[in-house]
Amino acid sequence: MSDYLIKKYAGLTPYVPGEQPRDRVFIKLNTNESPFPPSPGVAAAVEKEAGNLALYSDPECTDLRAALAAKLGVKAENLLMTNGSDEILYFAFSAFADRERPLVFPDVTYGFYKVLAGLIGVPYTEMPTDETLAVRPEDYAGGRRTVVLANPNAPTGLSLPLSTIGDIVKNNDGVVIVDEAYIAFGGESALPLVEKYDNLIVTRTFSKSRSMAGARLGFAVANEALIRDMNALKYAQNPYNVNRMTAAAGIAAIREDGYYLGNCARIRETREKTAAALTELGFTVLPSDTNFLFIKRHGLDGAGYYAALRDKGILVRHFDTARLKSHVRVTIGTSGQMTRFLEATKEIIKEKEV
Amino acid sequence: MSDYLIKKYAGLTPYVPGEQPRDRVFIKLNTNESPFPPSPGVAAAVEKEAGNLALYSDPECTDLRAALAAKLGVKAENLLMTNGSDEILYFAFSAFADRERPLVFPDVTYGFYKVLAGLIGVPYTEMPTDETLAVRPEDYAGGRRTVVLANPNAPTGLSLPLSTIGDIVKNNDGVVIVDEAYIAFGGESALPLVEKYDNLIVTRTFSKSRSMAGARLGFAVANEALIRDMNALKYAQNPYNVNRMTAAAGIAAIREDGYYLGNCARIRETREKTAAALTELGFTVLPSDTNFLFIKRHGLDGAGYYAALRDKGILVRHFDTARLKSHVRVTIGTSGQMTRFLEATKEIIKEKEV
Repeated sequence: MSDYLIKKYAGLTPYVPGEQPRDRVFIKLNTNESPFPPSPGVAAAVEKEAGNLALYSDPECTDLRAALAAKLGVKAENLLMTNGSDEILYFAFSAFADRERPLVFPDVTYGFYKVLAGLIGVPYTEMPTDETLAVRPEDYAGGRRTVVLANPNAPTGLSLPLSTIGDIVKNNDGVVIVDEAYIAFGGESALPLVEKYDNLIVTRTFSKSRSMAGARLGFAVANEALIRDMNALKYAQNPYNVNRMTAAAGIAAIREDGYYLGNCARIRETREKTAAALTELGFTVLPSDTNFLFIKRHGLDGAGYYAALRDKGILVRHFDTARLKSHVRVTIGTSGQMTRFLEATKEIIKEKEV
Repeated sequence: MSDYLIKKYAGLTPYVPGEQPRDRVFIKLNTNESPFPPSPGVAAAVEKEAGNLALYSDPECTDLRAALAAKLGVKAENLLMTNGSDEILYFAFSAFADRERPLVFPDVTYGFYKVLAGLIGVPYTEMPTDETLAVRPEDYAGGRRTVVLANPNAPTGLSLPLSTIGDIVKNNDGVVIVDEAYIAFGGESALPLVEKYDNLIVTRTFSKSRSMAGARLGFAVANEALIRDMNALKYAQNPYNVNRMTAAAGIAAIREDGYYLGNCARIRETREKTAAALTELGFTVLPSDTNFLFIKRHGLDGAGYYAALRDKGILVRHFDTARLKSHVRVTIGTSGQMTRFLEATKEIIKEKEV
C-alpha cells in the first residue's frame, strides 16, 4: 500500500483467481475452463480482424449484438456486451445497488460478488444457504433489495427451477441479476422472463461453454431501459470495452454454435460418469448442473486432498472457508483427464488409509 | 433511464466518442487512429493465440510485462497492463483521488477525465488554460491534489517540457498522472522521472502510435507501491482485464518496434507538411507534438468547416464548447489522405468566399 491510496480502499480484499501455474504442466481442473479449443472458424476470424486493429472497436458491438440477438431470439436493444461477464456485474452493481437497494446474495456463491460490492462500496447481505448448501428462495423474495443469484450456483453446481426464479423476480422491488455463467451445462434459463419483467438482468459468458475464457466476452440480457442505464455507465467508464478480436471471435462462435453444444453434451456425459465413479469411491457429490463437481469424502480433508492431487499433477480448487473447506471443486475436463483424476483419487484414498 | 437506476447516476453525462460511421466510407481523420496497419507479426501471433482461448488470460500479463519492461528499461513491477489506457485512468482516479485529494486537470484536455471523475464521484477542478490554449504549469504545483495532465495535450497538441512536469511532480503532495497517449509523436516523456518520484504515474497506449486502437491495450508506469495499489483495485473489479489475443498482439508489436517508429516518423513529417500548407491557406495551426492538428481560420466557422468536410467524405472532430468551437481537430493520416484533405479544404474556402 502506498501513502497515496485513499482511505476507502485501505481494507480492500481483492478476488483471488484460481491458480494458473506457469512452471509445470498440470491437468487443469481448477478454473472451470472448457477442455475443448474454440471452434474452427474462430482463429481465422481473429486473424482477419487483426488487419483492422488500427481502428477503434465499435463501442456498440453492432454486428456481434445482431448475431447474438438472432441466436437468442431477443432484440439487439436487450443486449450489452462486456469484457467478460465480471464487467456486467460491475455495471449492474454500480447502476442499481446502493444503501436504499442493498445487494443480497447467498453466503455460498461466486466469491467475486462480495469483492466487487466492497470495491464499489455498496452494502450487501449474505443469506445463509441451507445445510445442503442450497439457496433458500424465500430469502430473496419481497423487499427493496438488489438480488444476485448465480443459477446454477458456484461452487456448488446446484440450481433453482425457473418457477422459483420467476417468483423472486416478481416479488422483488429491486433488480434481480441472474448469473447464468454455467447454464449451458444444466438448469433452466431465466431468458424467457426478460420480456415479462422490467427488473431482471440475465448475465452470460463465452468463457466456459464457448471455450473462450481467454477472449473475455460476456453479456447481459435485460429490458431496454436497464441496458440503457448500464450503457450510460459503460460510456463513462470504458466505452471501447470489447476489442475487435474478441468481437470477431464471438461472431464466429455464434455461427458455429453446434460445435459448442456438442462439447457441452460431452461434458455433461463425462460429469455424470465422473459423479457416479466418485460416489462409488465414497464421495458425497452435490448434484451438478454445471461443468464442475463439488465433492467431499469422509476421512479426506479438503486441503489435504487438493494438495495430494496437486502433487500428482492435477489442479482442482479448494476454498478455505468454514463452510466449504471439507470440499473441493473439480472442473469436468475431457474423458481422459477425468480417468486420470479418478486414478489419482483412488491412489490418494489408499495412501491416506494406510 | 429505468426506475431502478440509483440517484447518484441520474445526471451522468457519458463520454461521447468520435463518430464511427458504418453507412459510408470516409477518410477518417477524427479519432487519432494510425493510418497504418499493425506490424506483420501481429496477425500471426493473434491467430496462434486463438488456439489457447479456452484458458483464462494471465491476470499478471507476465510475458507482456517482461517484454515491455525490457523495451522501456524499467522493472516488470513498475508496469500495469489494462484494457486500453482509459482503464488505467479508472484505476488511478479511483485509487488516489477523493475529497482530500481532489482531481485537477486543464479546462481544455481529453474530455474523458471529467466524465470518469463524475462516474467515480470524485470532486474535480478544471484549471483554465491561457489565451493560447496552453496549460499554465503554476496551477498544478503545490497543494494536496491529484493532478492529471495529458502531455502532449489533446485536442491542442501542445506539450510541456520535462523540467516543468518534474517541478509539478516534485511540488505536489498527491499523485500526478501524466497521460502520454501521444508521446511517440513529440514532446518529452516523463518516464525517466518514475524512478525518482513515488507519486508519478505515466500512462501510455498502443492505440495510436502502435496501430492498435481496436485491440485495447494501455499501461501505466509507476513505482511499485502505486502499481500494487492499482492492481488491488483491478483484482477487485476485473482481474482478467487483458485478453489473450491483445496480450499476444502487444508482444508481437514490441518485437517489431522499428516498424512503428518508422510510421511515427512518417506521421510527424506529414504533420509538418500539412501544418505548413494550412498556414499557407490562412489557418492558425497550434504547434503539435501529436498525430493531429488543432486548427482554425478566420471566416471559417468550426462546425461549418466540419460539416463541409463531412459532405466531401472526410471526417474530422469538432468540439462544440465555447473555447473550442471555432477549431477542428484533424488527425494526421497518410500523405495521400492529407493531400485530399487539403484539396477539400481549398474547395471549402473557395465556396465559403463566394
